[in-house]
Amino acid sequence: MRIAIDAMGGDHAPDEILEGAIESIKQLDKDDSLILVGQAEVIESKLGAKNLKKYAESLKIVNAPEIIDMDEAPIEAIRKKRHSSISVMVKLAADGQADIVISAGNTGAFVAGCQMRMRNIEGLNRPGIAVVFPTFEGPVTMCDVGANIACKPINFYQYALMASVYSKHILGIDNPRIGIMSIGEEDAKGNEIVKKARELIKSDPKMNFIGNIEGSDIFKGKCDVAICDGFVGNVVLKLTEGLVDGLFKVIKHEIMQESMRLALKFKPIMMRMYQKYDYNEYGGAVLLGVNGTAMICHGSSKSRTIKNAILTCKEFYNQKINEKIKDYLSTTTVKEIDEQ
Amino acid sequence: MRIAIDAMGGDHAPDEILEGAIESIKQLDKDDSLILVGQAEVIESKLGAKNLKKYAESLKIVNAPEIIDMDEAPIEAIRKKRHSSISVMVKLAADGQADIVISAGNTGAFVAGCQMRMRNIEGLNRPGIAVVFPTFEGPVTMCDVGANIACKPINFYQYALMASVYSKHILGIDNPRIGIMSIGEEDAKGNEIVKKARELIKSDPKMNFIGNIEGSDIFKGKCDVAICDGFVGNVVLKLTEGLVDGLFKVIKHEIMQESMRLALKFKPIMMRMYQKYDYNEYGGAVLLGVNGTAMICHGSSKSRTIKNAILTCKEFYNQKINEKIKDYLSTTTVKEIDEQ
Repeated sequence: MRIAIDAMGGDHAPDEILEGAIESIKQLDKDDSLILVGQAEVIESKLGAKNLKKYAESLKIVNAPEIIDMDEAPIEAIRKKRHSSISVMVKLAADGQADIVISAGNTGAFVAGCQMRMRNIEGLNRPGIAVVFPTFEGPVTMCDVGANIACKPINFYQYALMASVYSKHILGIDNPRIGIMSIGEEDAKGNEIVKKARELIKSDPKMNFIGNIEGSDIFKGKCDVAICDGFVGNVVLKLTEGLVDGLFKVIKHEIMQESMRLALKFKPIMMRMYQKYDYNEYGGAVLLGVNGTAMICHGSSKSRTIKNAILTCKEFYNQKINEKIKDYLSTTTVKEIDEQ
Repeated sequence: MRIAIDAMGGDHAPDEILEGAIESIKQLDKDDSLILVGQAEVIESKLGAKNLKKYAESLKIVNAPEIIDMDEAPIEAIRKKRHSSISVMVKLAADGQADIVISAGNTGAFVAGCQMRMRNIEGLNRPGIAVVFPTFEGPVTMCDVGANIACKPINFYQYALMASVYSKHILGIDNPRIGIMSIGEEDAKGNEIVKKARELIKSDPKMNFIGNIEGSDIFKGKCDVAICDGFVGNVVLKLTEGLVDGLFKVIKHEIMQESMRLALKFKPIMMRMYQKYDYNEYGGAVLLGVNGTAMICHGSSKSRTIKNAILTCKEFYNQKINEKIKDYLSTTTVKEIDEQ
């Protein structure tokens, strides 16, 4: 398979991106290839002649002279910067020249680029971003975390469909329990869209739907898949990041006040925990619903994250997740509700 | 002042509720009185003759034979159970016989009861629930966390107004920085309602408005007040609870795997942290915007929380927060946007 990587995207690009790509090579198959997209001269000089020669068969460089900055307005950037690494990369995918696209750059631009250039899977209305939360009780897949902030009931249903396929075949969870984010467990709770979405999901007997879940349930092992609109999902994702960081800051402060020796003993445990429950373990978030495999990595991604992203995408591709989603979509009788 | 407490509401009612009430008495003023609302016989027998005699001047019992269960449908419960502790209590406030109402019972029923029986502050469209997050960088007041899931722009503006008055006069934060929860820092980010709300808040030069904030910013010391609709706020509140619990579970597990001795050393630090950053410190969440002082306590509240709730409410009343909100509302020129 052909894996295209945005070499210029992210806070630590291009160094960490290239390092992650190189690290992944030994875990790839013989007929896999990496396409490094970005400023060719920069990439070549960073890789060095030795690497270029050593991995000549696995590496291809595609020149893209422009860079989309992290804080540029997404859609405008995609339209204007046609020679940026993101634009060139999504075009490769659209033209059937790349099977997988990965970027740690401007998330909005990357998602917009994928949506504008790669088509949706047949029968799918709107793509959604799925992120995996590694909790004490097991991994929870949440969709959508930012692609679609104006969700219709059918979008929720399709997010449930896609995320459960992902949960089953990538995370190995048999018959994943699907919950919809709301503000109380009872059926009567939630806004109108959520209530309609719930009815739609309920009407599909193939889904293991458990109904409403609350914010706390994500970490209580109550569900394997959590469905929400992109606004709520994005707040949840960012809040989780901020809260975990904030809490570790508090713990560090308190332990250091107690005793420096205790702090030193606690440090390796904290590091281990960080690794174990780090969602970078999965590389990033997948944009479910586009024709192809697209993974959004965090802007702060280092080489390990990029390597993991490549390996997760390879699994996504090998497991034919998109084929499975397409099959499910073609057989379901659940259709969009007419909205006045 | 007259402080009415729902003696029957909460997982640990009536014992912990009554204990908290008794504990608060020594910090109250001479002319303050506690009104314990609930099944009179039960309250009397739990308090015992000794307490009843000792605190005869500070305690009053109002009989309310019915109980609204924690999982009853709120509005129906309020309508049907007119002799429940919640119904009787909010009626006392509506009739001017109680200045403060506090309940750890069914949140939905209590909020619905307050909204149905006590009127809104003059000029206020919809009440909102404000909760204080004690973060490493200082307390952050978030409003709304569940009273209003279908917010109009004017509601967001008024939540900003009320929460900043609260932040200033209860938490002592001068000129609090107000942010609106969205999914990116740039002005263009957010859904339509949030964008309109932002314009409305911006149009008031008296507000220290910093624009969009993301989920992570709450714990980064970026704002003192965070505004959102009740759906998003409720998800945030519950997620925070669940994540903190989940994270401490992980830490405990990892430390115990390392060494039992280390775990024992870490325990008191964890307990201290729990106390320091426990939002029960503030007693509960205030329902801002109703005529009177209403505080919603967590269902799991123990005596300490109830005592803190009583003291926070006393401060709210003494600081004349509602008068200050009313004054602000009467002078602002910001009005509702006409919506097609």
